[in-house]
Amino acid sequence: MTRHELFAQIQQKQSYLCIGLDSDITKIPKHLLEYDDPIYEFNKQIIDATKDLCVAYKPNLAFYEAEGLKGWQALEKTIHYIPEEHFIIADAKRGDIGNTSKLYAKAFFNTLNADAVTVAPYMGEDSVTPFLGFPGKWVILLALTSNPGSKNFQFLYQENGQSLYENVINTAIKWGTPDEMMFVVGATHPEKFQEIRALAPDYFFLVPGVGAQGGELKEISKYGMNEHCGLLVNSSRSIIFASDGEDFAEKAHAAALEIQQEMAEILKNKFPS
Amino acid sequence: MTRHELFAQIQQKQSYLCIGLDSDITKIPKHLLEYDDPIYEFNKQIIDATKDLCVAYKPNLAFYEAEGLKGWQALEKTIHYIPEEHFIIADAKRGDIGNTSKLYAKAFFNTLNADAVTVAPYMGEDSVTPFLGFPGKWVILLALTSNPGSKNFQFLYQENGQSLYENVINTAIKWGTPDEMMFVVGATHPEKFQEIRALAPDYFFLVPGVGAQGGELKEISKYGMNEHCGLLVNSSRSIIFASDGEDFAEKAHAAALEIQQEMAEILKNKFPS
Repeated sequence: MTRHELFAQIQQKQSYLCIGLDSDITKIPKHLLEYDDPIYEFNKQIIDATKDLCVAYKPNLAFYEAEGLKGWQALEKTIHYIPEEHFIIADAKRGDIGNTSKLYAKAFFNTLNADAVTVAPYMGEDSVTPFLGFPGKWVILLALTSNPGSKNFQFLYQENGQSLYENVINTAIKWGTPDEMMFVVGATHPEKFQEIRALAPDYFFLVPGVGAQGGELKEISKYGMNEHCGLLVNSSRSIIFASDGEDFAEKAHAAALEIQQEMAEILKNKFPS
Repeated sequence: MTRHELFAQIQQKQSYLCIGLDSDITKIPKHLLEYDDPIYEFNKQIIDATKDLCVAYKPNLAFYEAEGLKGWQALEKTIHYIPEEHFIIADAKRGDIGNTSKLYAKAFFNTLNADAVTVAPYMGEDSVTPFLGFPGKWVILLALTSNPGSKNFQFLYQENGQSLYENVINTAIKWGTPDEMMFVVGATHPEKFQEIRALAPDYFFLVPGVGAQGGELKEISKYGMNEHCGLLVNSSRSIIFASDGEDFAEKAHAAALEIQQEMAEILKNKFPS
């Protein structure tokens, strides 16, 4: 999917919501465990209930790998089930030496057919660039993450006066264009959005941390949006686990709708027609 | 496997060699493609030919994930085939927010039954510590990697006067003991081993970069060894792809033997009986 197509989807659905399919088998409603493939069944119902409200889905691979072969099967089936017009992010946080990253790119873009994969920057250029250059496919590079541990290294100030995450952004924008690279910027650092947007004006940011991890949609939208929206705001647990009963899909719809309506309001103000 | 048991294996085999099962299906001998599961067949023959010469095997997950479900099957069968006394490293370079890292730990330690998993430090404490506290299981944290991209961020000097990889080591030794944590230190930086050993005297280092990536066994052993050896030196392509003909296993044996003999010599000098 191109940046242009993604923005068109955002405008059409009045939503820049990404739903994280962190489909932990220990947390899905118990009545689904009767199915042959409970994770797939759960995802299918979540997708049916939310597909009109979001532009992207983001399965986090940990929840599938934890189940071994069965988990991979559930993941492949889920990706196949997601409607064509959605942007699919394999949240894998990969990154390895050049020849190995190339294989990961093959795994996610060709074998799994995801639109994007999240990549960790620690190993540098030759661990990131092999994911670039696939037409319509994207690298989403970790910059400033939403978790408490983001404070351990990402905020360390370098001798050049920039923090590590600023260095990552300033370096990586030389590797990939805004048409093939995005950055992860956690909603738990809303005060940083203005500065980070200035570093990478045209890039999309994938923003986790809204919902279960805390974070303010209005504030990050105010400071983080650009002229092509430039934000995909992810919510996982607060939508998919809004209920653990038989009404889970209905409750997921309601939780997604609440966010989508807030987004529609923000988009209307930002892009009046 | 405990640190004590690992050192006992090293002494018994007179080897601290780890063999990387980077079993790229496009690089394995063509005659194996006739088999139902060519990657597994390749690994089986490599393991049979080298198991007496190494103490550890390290499948890099990229080469399995690239093949989707079939790849995971090959990986599970390979891990099952590796003899009990070998230390098995899932080279996955994972790392995610706390609840997600916990699932990855389950994937690698319980589902796959690996002894160790490589973890990327960028996301900090809550992305690393969920891998700790599994008896006999290990986190191998990326510190100074062997690839050219290691220079992008790992050498950046922080305001405290330490480079990023030094900060990672100094911080992480507060999270995990030498009985549950190791560090990746690339052989392509031999001049750094003395300093890094001083930072983490009792920890094992997993050392990639010998062989196809360059690097000097004698020098890293001289400066990197501690009183319990403290080194696992990995070689992947120069052993497993020593030949692409029908003699590949034989040639892998010869390549591993050459390294093992050099290691035996070094161990004899370091630990005279």
